[in-house]
Amino acid sequence: MIIRPENIIGNEFSAKGESTFRSYNPSLNQEIDATYYIATAEEVEQACILAQKASKPYFQIGVKKRTDFLNKVIFYIQENQAELLRWFVQESGLNEARAKLELDRTIFQIKTYAVSAEKLYSTLNSEAADPPIHSIKREYFPLGPIAVFGASNFPFAYSTAGGDTASALAAGCPVIVKGHPLHPITGHLVAQCIQKAAIDTGMPEGVFSYLNSNAIQVGQQLVLNEAVKGVGFTGSIKGGRAIFDLAAKRETLIPVFAEMGSVNPVFISKKSLKQGNSWAEEYAKSITLGVGQFCTSPGLIFGLNSGEFDDFANRLNHLLETTDEQVMLGSSIKENFTQGLTKIGVELDATSSPNAIKPTMKVIEAKEFLNNSDFAEEYFGSFCVLVKCTDLEEVESCAQFLKGQLTCSLIAQEDELKEMSDLIYTLKSKCGRLIFNGVSTGVAVHPFQQHGGPYPASTDSRFTAVGDDAIMRWVRPIAVQNAF
Amino acid sequence: MIIRPENIIGNEFSAKGESTFRSYNPSLNQEIDATYYIATAEEVEQACILAQKASKPYFQIGVKKRTDFLNKVIFYIQENQAELLRWFVQESGLNEARAKLELDRTIFQIKTYAVSAEKLYSTLNSEAADPPIHSIKREYFPLGPIAVFGASNFPFAYSTAGGDTASALAAGCPVIVKGHPLHPITGHLVAQCIQKAAIDTGMPEGVFSYLNSNAIQVGQQLVLNEAVKGVGFTGSIKGGRAIFDLAAKRETLIPVFAEMGSVNPVFISKKSLKQGNSWAEEYAKSITLGVGQFCTSPGLIFGLNSGEFDDFANRLNHLLETTDEQVMLGSSIKENFTQGLTKIGVELDATSSPNAIKPTMKVIEAKEFLNNSDFAEEYFGSFCVLVKCTDLEEVESCAQFLKGQLTCSLIAQEDELKEMSDLIYTLKSKCGRLIFNGVSTGVAVHPFQQHGGPYPASTDSRFTAVGDDAIMRWVRPIAVQNAF
Repeated sequence: MIIRPENIIGNEFSAKGESTFRSYNPSLNQEIDATYYIATAEEVEQACILAQKASKPYFQIGVKKRTDFLNKVIFYIQENQAELLRWFVQESGLNEARAKLELDRTIFQIKTYAVSAEKLYSTLNSEAADPPIHSIKREYFPLGPIAVFGASNFPFAYSTAGGDTASALAAGCPVIVKGHPLHPITGHLVAQCIQKAAIDTGMPEGVFSYLNSNAIQVGQQLVLNEAVKGVGFTGSIKGGRAIFDLAAKRETLIPVFAEMGSVNPVFISKKSLKQGNSWAEEYAKSITLGVGQFCTSPGLIFGLNSGEFDDFANRLNHLLETTDEQVMLGSSIKENFTQGLTKIGVELDATSSPNAIKPTMKVIEAKEFLNNSDFAEEYFGSFCVLVKCTDLEEVESCAQFLKGQLTCSLIAQEDELKEMSDLIYTLKSKCGRLIFNGVSTGVAVHPFQQHGGPYPASTDSRFTAVGDDAIMRWVRPIAVQNAF
Repeated sequence: MIIRPENIIGNEFSAKGESTFRSYNPSLNQEIDATYYIATAEEVEQACILAQKASKPYFQIGVKKRTDFLNKVIFYIQENQAELLRWFVQESGLNEARAKLELDRTIFQIKTYAVSAEKLYSTLNSEAADPPIHSIKREYFPLGPIAVFGASNFPFAYSTAGGDTASALAAGCPVIVKGHPLHPITGHLVAQCIQKAAIDTGMPEGVFSYLNSNAIQVGQQLVLNEAVKGVGFTGSIKGGRAIFDLAAKRETLIPVFAEMGSVNPVFISKKSLKQGNSWAEEYAKSITLGVGQFCTSPGLIFGLNSGEFDDFANRLNHLLETTDEQVMLGSSIKENFTQGLTKIGVELDATSSPNAIKPTMKVIEAKEFLNNSDFAEEYFGSFCVLVKCTDLEEVESCAQFLKGQLTCSLIAQEDELKEMSDLIYTLKSKCGRLIFNGVSTGVAVHPFQQHGGPYPASTDSRFTAVGDDAIMRWVRPIAVQNAF
């Protein structure tokens, strides 16, 4: 593949603007020699017009041909795997093993959503009413063009050909991706794979477009364009809320699914603390996985104040301290992380590379936690706050103090659960996924997965960004009455 | 039952304010001697606090006990049926037959949602992942307290104990109803039935409250209260959008399901026009049913310009002209109807009673329709616009010109459908329910019913206000990983 500077608009490449930006290697802290033309308002409009025109033929070709298209996307991603992995590593600061894992996950997701869509569109729900006045069947209909805002932290799995794009395309919706500025080469090359697959398989032009962008205007124009019928976003609370607020100003309201922030609190029981060493090791790994740049990274651990808790904290601290320094996705991410931690009095150790961090943690008492909501915020990076509680009542108060979460975790023995029923209810009331005796990082693509949660974890807790039902964000039921 | 002036807040009656309003009989055009105290900000807050407190015990008692509660609601509605029907007729201007039909529907809805909820909470989705890293089960969790805004036009079925309340209570959510000022006696008596049933069956206090209101403040306070976790609204586009916009300003975003306006366009084919007389009779009945005060009332009929179309129009006009005058729900409804029609040059015939109307219609050409979006608006009352099109292309243009609808209808013969495939696609892209050879009024409570549609028919086309899935608006899935 060729690294090209233009926007991808339907079957064409387009560079009508003058503003550009360049890719950047966070490990080397230097620009990469690849320039991108930021999409102009005219180009955004053109992508939207094409997507709108493509909606009908893309729906009418049927789910089997859409699956052929998605399989061809997989083919091109696999064919260009070596190149994609190389640029992923250069642009993200993440290593090749992670890149490969994420690429495999991306392919698995595309396959899963194609299968989900085949099920959805082949199952016609039909039942006679009682009394049999009407015969009503249920069909599904795609919402129409979807704007996808990829994530900084998943250049493959939650960006250009990631979960939102794949689920929307599988559902029968054209997709316009706003490329993420932290991985423009990776994003653009994946976009070229999708464009080639669309042309190869005879998809209607406009079923996919990809717009270069390093600021907010392109996204704003997309969200406000009346041709766009839904939005998928993965990123910060600030970004997701801004998009929701903007969409709420449209004349025609549309669904906005933003998967945003989460601190992923962990509650560890008395007996489990006695197994402290093994859990400390599990959590050290989970906290530092992907430099803590996961929406499911555990950021808070609660336990009863005890010698065992101190042992657990000391062990975890040791493991974090002895972890090698890690390069973050970009300088802005490091800056946000550093500034955030300053608010709660944590200063990061110096590192040899400017975009790197040393993993760290902080131990506080429940009273401090309950008196300062900053401790309940997400700090995106390898970091965790440990909270010592005097009794189960204080644990419960801390749980109730939390905002909506993607995940909550409970590390406990079976015989302890009875006295924890209040806590379990509270955790369920807060999250989309409750994990027993495991870490929250690693979100399986699973028929019953729920990756979302009460606000601010997502903008709509009834939908999921991961798992078979991710496609349900982009379709609506139609009741067909008295059909022939 | 006793007609009482207070708000119903949990198990108590409360009248802390000084502002009051009275009930009104639209048929007699006079006030009824029944006064209601408008809920104060303190009373709204009190209802919200109680609802929040009730959330946990109401969920934890389980679905069977919630069904007992709902059955007791039905018991009290039936026990007080004569009185409820009498006040329904006096407050709505609708006749007793309609009141009885609506009461029976209300009871059927409550039963249906109880059964849906039993299915939902007893079906635990469980499947091992492949590869079996995680065991994930799906559970459902109620959103929490729901604010319900009842409709003017359904004092029973979409108000106090109507579809939103019944589906939310069945789903395990406490409900706070803002009473509709056009039927305060009916609403309050039904609320007393719910309160008595809650006390009788030992429900946690606050599972239900009912607030008197004749203006917007009570609703605004409810929507902005952080204890409220979802909103159900049935009414006008203006009202629904205002509530959506207000909720979008909350710190914590919540789902707002508003079922709003629809013109329910009908497309009648060449061959079907030849059967014009019988369809004219069907449509005359449908247009005037409930004084046209149904969200599914057909307001637009499209057909090809021809002698048959003229015959159909003349026949329909005759039937509407010879319909007796009908009393609208209230003076404000009549005023809105009259003013709306003035915009499109229609003047209503004089009537003997000030709140009554004579059903009417207007015939225009497609060009006029396409040049004036006022013809595509909803006029809430017994009225219909007939649009003459020169060819199928113009029919298609008219269909594309429409906004989102609750229903679209196609009256056609089987052998005509082939040349109508574009039109069928367009109609599906516009509506939540597509009816073949039938009228849109009459929304069956059915497993696959879809009462909703693209904006402005509703605020979220993926959910339904009628049918078994109405409860899905008020629950969210939780993935439970590695449960014991």
